[in-house]
Amino acid sequence: MDTIVSERSLRALTERLFEREGFSGADACVIADVLMLADLFGIESHGAQRMMYYHQNIASGSVNTQAQIETVRETPVSALLDAHFAMGQLAGVHAMRLAMRKAKQSGIGMVCVRNSSHYGIAGYYTLMAAKEGLCAFSMTNTGPIMTPTFGREMMLGTNPIAFCMPADPYPFWFDASTTVVTLGKVEVHAKREKPMPEGWTIDADGVLCTDAQRMNSSILAGGMGGILPLGGAGETRGGHKGYGLAIMVEALTGVLAQGLLSPEMQGAHGDHTSHFFLAFDPAIFGDADAIRAQMSRYLRMLRESEKLPGENRIYTPGEKAFESMRRRMETGIPVEEKTMKELRRIAAELGVEAI
Amino acid sequence: MDTIVSERSLRALTERLFEREGFSGADACVIADVLMLADLFGIESHGAQRMMYYHQNIASGSVNTQAQIETVRETPVSALLDAHFAMGQLAGVHAMRLAMRKAKQSGIGMVCVRNSSHYGIAGYYTLMAAKEGLCAFSMTNTGPIMTPTFGREMMLGTNPIAFCMPADPYPFWFDASTTVVTLGKVEVHAKREKPMPEGWTIDADGVLCTDAQRMNSSILAGGMGGILPLGGAGETRGGHKGYGLAIMVEALTGVLAQGLLSPEMQGAHGDHTSHFFLAFDPAIFGDADAIRAQMSRYLRMLRESEKLPGENRIYTPGEKAFESMRRRMETGIPVEEKTMKELRRIAAELGVEAI
Repeated sequence: MDTIVSERSLRALTERLFEREGFSGADACVIADVLMLADLFGIESHGAQRMMYYHQNIASGSVNTQAQIETVRETPVSALLDAHFAMGQLAGVHAMRLAMRKAKQSGIGMVCVRNSSHYGIAGYYTLMAAKEGLCAFSMTNTGPIMTPTFGREMMLGTNPIAFCMPADPYPFWFDASTTVVTLGKVEVHAKREKPMPEGWTIDADGVLCTDAQRMNSSILAGGMGGILPLGGAGETRGGHKGYGLAIMVEALTGVLAQGLLSPEMQGAHGDHTSHFFLAFDPAIFGDADAIRAQMSRYLRMLRESEKLPGENRIYTPGEKAFESMRRRMETGIPVEEKTMKELRRIAAELGVEAI
Repeated sequence: MDTIVSERSLRALTERLFEREGFSGADACVIADVLMLADLFGIESHGAQRMMYYHQNIASGSVNTQAQIETVRETPVSALLDAHFAMGQLAGVHAMRLAMRKAKQSGIGMVCVRNSSHYGIAGYYTLMAAKEGLCAFSMTNTGPIMTPTFGREMMLGTNPIAFCMPADPYPFWFDASTTVVTLGKVEVHAKREKPMPEGWTIDADGVLCTDAQRMNSSILAGGMGGILPLGGAGETRGGHKGYGLAIMVEALTGVLAQGLLSPEMQGAHGDHTSHFFLAFDPAIFGDADAIRAQMSRYLRMLRESEKLPGENRIYTPGEKAFESMRRRMETGIPVEEKTMKELRRIAAELGVEAI
């Protein structure tokens, strides 16, 4: 049974927990805001549910609460940052703010970060930019979970691509892993003891596998087999495209930031992650309002185009998230029992009053 | 039966044909070079095979051989160009050169083009940049061939994403449509009267369809149904991700360049296309040689990782293309009978000696 918690209480609890973990009040607010957006957007896998994971990383010292983010190189349009194992959210917000400042001053800002950690939803950062009228990309590498086309060893991360562009009534907000599904979806099926649809994973022998519990354990243990690239197994339905997109993300993150590569990281979520941020001002190409109106018009055309029989809606990326946010701000956020227990346990440990 | 033609003869013929079409010698060389790379890379759908298509576009006036590419807006890091219906290859090379110049001077160059036409393989332009040590993106919208997730009306183009980064022994060269397959693959199956694998297209009723001839005619006629986004039908295997990537490409091309949107174009290949180019110098992030070595090392790790049973090779994007080029430079390019006939017909029409 899910507990319904108001956005306000969940945010307040998350902020207090991060403060007690050793972050400054300001930093705790930043981290909590990234998690809250995931919960509001309906992407629970990246919301308060991740608290235990962060708690353990802080306890083990793989995240440094006092890290100072260092600017290694800088030009008017770019920067390379070393996060020195800061929380990914702090590194991400710092880096995107810098990219946005450069975009406002020079038209474009490109910022790479190395030695960061799990930064939550990639799309949080692109939305920061869109709120100020900018277009933006955000990408990250992660620990290895994806097998290459024709391979059975996990060599690539979830490697999401997020892109956001101002539009009405909502920005065009795209945030997707380059795998068929994220590890979170495999975990959910494993937890519910349900088989997965075919085409998500291959096992150690390279055979398509729908056994979520077996695959979840095997992936977490770093065994052979893993999640397939977007497009699936082989090349028939474009699996090599998802595989290629994932390498592209690694090229722009781990390689360009000169950090660790996905297969060099420990664990499925990965430490020492690298991120890539690109922000640009559409006004360098024309009237920003006209471009925004054109984008809004295209999204409307898509939504109003001919539906499949039996379908009553065509979504454009971000719609579901923004609608979920509006609903959950009013009626609260459903939190899974396991997550509630974990939050209470961490709260007790840190001497914080739980919900 | 394919005719084997040497690279030199096919290039010479293509150049002569474009000269007789009304282009300057220099422009004819540029256009021919883009087509030749496709033929050498084994992407015949975008090589000499397209000559008839271009010939017809020039004859109908939808391509202007004398077009002057106009710079509409410019900053040190960006430009918006209006191609005034130039051949896409001329617009593409002009735009990427400009982006590269800006990347060398300012670190990054982003160039959008509107009112262009079919520009061949998106990856031609990214390779121009990689040859000079730069990383680059190239994207284009096209006439509508893709149906949205839950939709049955073609609202999005092939919308490829190309990205290239210097590496050894070959650059990392990624060039892929955001559809499951390109229209060219449907055409090939139709021509050979072979059924397509399931999961490529849906028909007018929204049902998965493997009848290549029916789908090819329907798509060319602009009927309902079309090619599915990368990830396939619905959301189960990530079809919404391919759909979202395609919208992202339209956002960066038709929207940002303030040109026509895919569904506003006539025909499956589309006229009035818009392109997006982004080049940047990896040296703004660190030692370019070290970054190149890191990229090469990762690609090698992928190739050397554990293969599926029965597979003896894992490819990295670009390998097949560069190996094909090496082979075809030595032994010649196989040209289909239909294409040979078309080339001879155009040659006769233009008074050029054919092969």
